[in-house]
Amino acid sequence: MQGRPAAEPAVLVALPGEEQRAARIARALPRASVAALHLRRFPDGETYVRFDSPVAGRPVVLVCSLHQADEKLVPLLLVAATARDLGAASVTLLAPYLGYMRQDARFHAGEGITSLYVGRLLSAAVDRLVTVDPHLHRHERLDDVYSVPCDVLSAAPDLGAWVRANVPGAFLVGPDAESAQWVHAAAGVGAPDPLPHVVFEKTRHGYHDVVIEVPDLAPYAGLVPVLVDDVVSTGRTMIEAARHLADAGFPPPVCAAVHGVFADGAETALAAAGLSTLVTCDTVPHATNRIATSALLARAL
Amino acid sequence: MQGRPAAEPAVLVALPGEEQRAARIARALPRASVAALHLRRFPDGETYVRFDSPVAGRPVVLVCSLHQADEKLVPLLLVAATARDLGAASVTLLAPYLGYMRQDARFHAGEGITSLYVGRLLSAAVDRLVTVDPHLHRHERLDDVYSVPCDVLSAAPDLGAWVRANVPGAFLVGPDAESAQWVHAAAGVGAPDPLPHVVFEKTRHGYHDVVIEVPDLAPYAGLVPVLVDDVVSTGRTMIEAARHLADAGFPPPVCAAVHGVFADGAETALAAAGLSTLVTCDTVPHATNRIATSALLARAL
Repeated sequence: MQGRPAAEPAVLVALPGEEQRAARIARALPRASVAALHLRRFPDGETYVRFDSPVAGRPVVLVCSLHQADEKLVPLLLVAATARDLGAASVTLLAPYLGYMRQDARFHAGEGITSLYVGRLLSAAVDRLVTVDPHLHRHERLDDVYSVPCDVLSAAPDLGAWVRANVPGAFLVGPDAESAQWVHAAAGVGAPDPLPHVVFEKTRHGYHDVVIEVPDLAPYAGLVPVLVDDVVSTGRTMIEAARHLADAGFPPPVCAAVHGVFADGAETALAAAGLSTLVTCDTVPHATNRIATSALLARAL
Repeated sequence: MQGRPAAEPAVLVALPGEEQRAARIARALPRASVAALHLRRFPDGETYVRFDSPVAGRPVVLVCSLHQADEKLVPLLLVAATARDLGAASVTLLAPYLGYMRQDARFHAGEGITSLYVGRLLSAAVDRLVTVDPHLHRHERLDDVYSVPCDVLSAAPDLGAWVRANVPGAFLVGPDAESAQWVHAAAGVGAPDPLPHVVFEKTRHGYHDVVIEVPDLAPYAGLVPVLVDDVVSTGRTMIEAARHLADAGFPPPVCAAVHGVFADGAETALAAAGLSTLVTCDTVPHATNRIATSALLARAL
C-alpha cells in the first residue's frame, strides 16, 4: 500500500501550477510518467476530476506544494480520492512546502489547532507524505501531525552550498531559536569546516511584545551576514534581525529561506528595509528561487 | 453523540455569510444562541479559527449552505474539527443547500464521483446532517452518500403554497424526469386538490445531444405555466423547457426552484429567453428568494 518497492512505474500527477515540477521529477525517475489529469470547474463552481491516463495498479504521486493551501486542499482531496477509487496501488502526496504547520498549539482559549486537523485530513486521503523542511517547532516530529509514513527532506544543506558558492566570507545568522535547526544544517554543523554561524534568541512576552537577544557579534566583524530561516512569509522576522545586524555595524544581509511564501506586501516591506538580496529554494515558485529541489524530491521517491 | 435529545441548549455557528440565517434559526429555538466565531486568514492565506464563546458539552450546529462549496469546505472542516476538539457534545451540519450532489456516477472512464468523496469528508467531520431537497437522482437516498444520520427536509410544499397564493390558474411543469419528485411535492400529489402538473422527459444521447419529449399540453390551455425544479444553475434546463411551452402557445412561464444557485451568466441567459419571473427559496441567498426556510430548519433541530 505504501508504494515504496513498486513494481509498476510511478505516475506523477500535477495539481494546478505544478506541471513543470512534475515533469522535472518524472524525467529524473526511471519509467515514471505524468498523468493526464483533467481538472476543471462546473459552471456552479464545483470541481470536476477525470484521469485521462491509467492509474489502476500504479503508485500515484500527487505533486502539490501547499502554499495558499485553502484553495488547493479541496481539489487535492478530490484528486486523491479519485486516484484511490480508480485503483491506484498507492497515493503519495509530494508537497515540497507543507502548509498549515504553524498553528501548532492552542495559544489562546477556543483556538483550533489547525496543523493537527489538516494533518488528519491529508493522512486520511493519502498513504505517504514527502515534504521538504516542514516547520517543526512545538510539534517535534512530523509523525506527531501525520499518521501516514512521512519522508522529511531538507534543502538546508543545498542552501548552505549556495551560500558557499555565491557569498564569499559569509556567516549565517538565525533570526530566532526556531531557525537554529536550519542554520545548523545550512552551515554544515557536524561536517568538516562548517560555515560560521550565530542564532539570535527571540523571547515572546505576548503577541506583539517580542524581545530579541543578540549575542556578541564581534567575532564576525568583516564577514557578510546571511540570514537563514525555513520560511519567509511577512518578512518581519528577517527585517527585525537585519535591524540588529545594522545596529552592530553590518551591511544589509542576504536573506535566504527554504520556502519563499511571501505574504501580500512582504517584498515591499523587505525592500523598504534595504533587504533586496533574497534567495529561496523552489519549493514555492517565486522570482527569488535559486535552489532547485527536484533532484532531492526524485531521490526520495 | 447525535445531539437530538440535548439537555444543553444548542449553539449555532454561522460560517461566513450565514450570520442572518443563524440568528433567525436561533430565535426560533428555545434557549439557543449564536456562537462568537472568530474566523480569519493569516497573512499567508491560511485559516485561523477561534471560538470566543463556550461550546464544550453543547450541541453545536454549523450553519453553512454549500453553494460555492470549494471555498467553504476548508473553513467548514476546520471549524467542525475545532468544535469537536473543544468538547462539543455533538456537531451538526445544517446545509440548506447541499453542494456536490450532481456528480453522482462515473459518466466517463477516469472520472471521480465527487458526491461520494465530499460525502465521506463531511461524514467524518460532523455527527449529523440537516439539509433541504438534496439533488437525489442516481443516489436514491442521502444515506447512500453520507454515513452520518441525515435529516432531509423539503421546501417543495412551501414552494407549491407560494404558487397557490401568487399565481392564480397555475399548472406546474417539470422540465425533466428528475424534477418529478419536486413537482409532485409542490403540487401536493396525494393530498386533496393537487395543482395540475405535467413532467417533460429528457433523453440524453450524449453530453450535448439531449431530446426533450413533451406530452400533450392541450388539457392545460389557458392555465399559467410554472416551471419547477430543485436547482436553477446555468438556467439551460428552464430555458429549453420554456421553448417547448412557447411552441405549444403558452406565455413565458414563472420559474420556481428550491435552490437558486445561478452560475455566472445564468440570469442574463434566462432574461434573454424572456424568463424574468424567478422565484427561489432562501437556501441560497439571492434576489429571487421569496420562500423562507428558517422555520423549516429550526423545526428539524
